[in-house]
Amino acid sequence: MAFDQIVTLMVKPGEGAAFEAAFAALATKVGASEPDTLDYRLFRVEGEADAYRVVESYASRDALAQHMKNPETREHMAALGPFLAGAPATSILTLCASAR
Amino acid sequence: MAFDQIVTLMVKPGEGAAFEAAFAALATKVGASEPDTLDYRLFRVEGEADAYRVVESYASRDALAQHMKNPETREHMAALGPFLAGAPATSILTLCASAR
Repeated sequence: MAFDQIVTLMVKPGEGAAFEAAFAALATKVGASEPDTLDYRLFRVEGEADAYRVVESYASRDALAQHMKNPETREHMAALGPFLAGAPATSILTLCASAR
Repeated sequence: MAFDQIVTLMVKPGEGAAFEAAFAALATKVGASEPDTLDYRLFRVEGEADAYRVVESYASRDALAQHMKNPETREHMAALGPFLAGAPATSILTLCASAR
């Protein structure tokens, strides 16, 4: 069963562009090394300065665990830390209905 | 260019099951009548009683406008109103990076 979550990240003012570049490098590695990571997108949020949402979907909870342990991405994940203004806030989701 | 948003809905306590059934009927109609609505999923949120997120993606802003005017879904949308404990909160998103 798919596992979905939305992570809210607050980035230090003025660090958005550098953060986005670092996240793009991570996303590329995720795409190349994690077949069970089905969706992994970073979004800016209109009207919320320095706020980002990561929409994530995994083939299973285990696929998320693999993602967190993936040696290909660990250094990229660590590289995001200095840009963050606080701890990520994660909303774990349960799918109820879908048009597709 | 795709248009993405996440809508947070708060449902009146005890109305979750009925709300989900009404939303499922809407989602079915959306899927059948809106080819440019690319993603339209309702989620419960772990640890947040009565809270829901709708993850939506449209082929364009115009596709969202079509969705809002779609005669096939208007009655279903109206049917959701009585379940809501307050106005929906919409986060309009701009894609920065993606693993896929």
